[in-house]
Amino acid sequence: MNLLLLEKEDLLASGEVRVSGRRHRQLRDVIKAVPGKRCRAGILGGMRGHAEVLRCEEDFTLLRFTEEDPPPPPLPVTLVIALPRPQTYTKVLNCAVEMGVKRIDFINSYKVEKSFWQGSRLAEEYVQNELRLALEQAADTVMPQVHFHPRFKPFVEDELPEISPGAARIAGIPGAAEVPEHFSGSPVILAVGPEGGFTDYENGFLLEHGFTGVTLGPHILRTEFAVAALLARLSIRNFRHG
Amino acid sequence: MNLLLLEKEDLLASGEVRVSGRRHRQLRDVIKAVPGKRCRAGILGGMRGHAEVLRCEEDFTLLRFTEEDPPPPPLPVTLVIALPRPQTYTKVLNCAVEMGVKRIDFINSYKVEKSFWQGSRLAEEYVQNELRLALEQAADTVMPQVHFHPRFKPFVEDELPEISPGAARIAGIPGAAEVPEHFSGSPVILAVGPEGGFTDYENGFLLEHGFTGVTLGPHILRTEFAVAALLARLSIRNFRHG
Repeated sequence: MNLLLLEKEDLLASGEVRVSGRRHRQLRDVIKAVPGKRCRAGILGGMRGHAEVLRCEEDFTLLRFTEEDPPPPPLPVTLVIALPRPQTYTKVLNCAVEMGVKRIDFINSYKVEKSFWQGSRLAEEYVQNELRLALEQAADTVMPQVHFHPRFKPFVEDELPEISPGAARIAGIPGAAEVPEHFSGSPVILAVGPEGGFTDYENGFLLEHGFTGVTLGPHILRTEFAVAALLARLSIRNFRHG
Repeated sequence: MNLLLLEKEDLLASGEVRVSGRRHRQLRDVIKAVPGKRCRAGILGGMRGHAEVLRCEEDFTLLRFTEEDPPPPPLPVTLVIALPRPQTYTKVLNCAVEMGVKRIDFINSYKVEKSFWQGSRLAEEYVQNELRLALEQAADTVMPQVHFHPRFKPFVEDELPEISPGAARIAGIPGAAEVPEHFSGSPVILAVGPEGGFTDYENGFLLEHGFTGVTLGPHILRTEFAVAALLARLSIRNFRHG
């Protein structure tokens, strides 16, 4: 936890902050909270700063929050990714959110197993919890949006045009010629296939719909590392000029 | 398994190949090996190609291997990284090897917990097995070297100069000004700190010893994603001109 994420329901009328549950236990057990101790904190959807422990009780910690700076700038990338197997799915969520992505669309693809769509990890509660943990890791406060689209073609044809209109569209396609060395810092929609890749038909469909194929090189990466690597390349320009 | 990794001990005098154990079970259960079926394969330390199943028995599979192309070019990066907690350590091994790193040096740092050095995952057998799995994922055949250095200063002062002499030295330091957008494709030594980062003293020591600090931006990434992101940036020039 690089940042204690505070929610509106934690803010008391007194101006103090009261956290319980997981965050309370982490403050008590990991940060060894005692009165006077400080940690980085931020308000969900708002400013970052620090929190000073006032009291640590059996089932809650009372703190005082002081605003200092805005959250880090978002990465203007919409990640569109074939729904991975459950463990990989969680790693992709973590990775994308830690790197500043604010919209993730999980889509179907020929090689996505049907069972992946029935996993308990797609439930709102699971997703929201993972997103909070990833924000705490990244020291970010801005909640990303996560959507699920169990049909590939209708998503690309009908829904995608309404997401980030005008964004550059790039798709990770093994063997494609181009490497996304320079994107302008303007919005990008990044499509990533399943293990084993999109089918030729799906690749063709993406290319027909304005996507440019990009590759990371000659090695085949597992999905979560491919996502990290592609986002790292897309973020260069942003961090340089952002 | 994107590539069936064959070892010298698998090669029969007849020119055929016999695999047993894990690889046999994967061929049988995942690839559903039947005579005539083909998969990508490669000889450890040698060429890649395809293997055709000749026979699948109870406890071994017999194949014929045909050479086709060399392994992917290595990434000329030596990864020097503070020994992470066990699970993260395995992810870092996987990630670096999948991205083509051929030398990894795990070092001590003030924030590395002593218990990490006693883990069973540091044993030769564990490491060799993980390296093989990562090569199979990456479709690579060249075995990386992994070394452990339980002392920070002697490693940087005495051992580092003998590893990749003349290599550029960069260290991931949060808040550093530079982003490694362009490295020349010549050798690089990349130093990555522990969770929570190198101490100020350690950062100073690295800077005194020729390292340049680089940052990935304003978000704090967990170790395995930081490694993926830094390697992705360092590999741009290589893949473009390599």
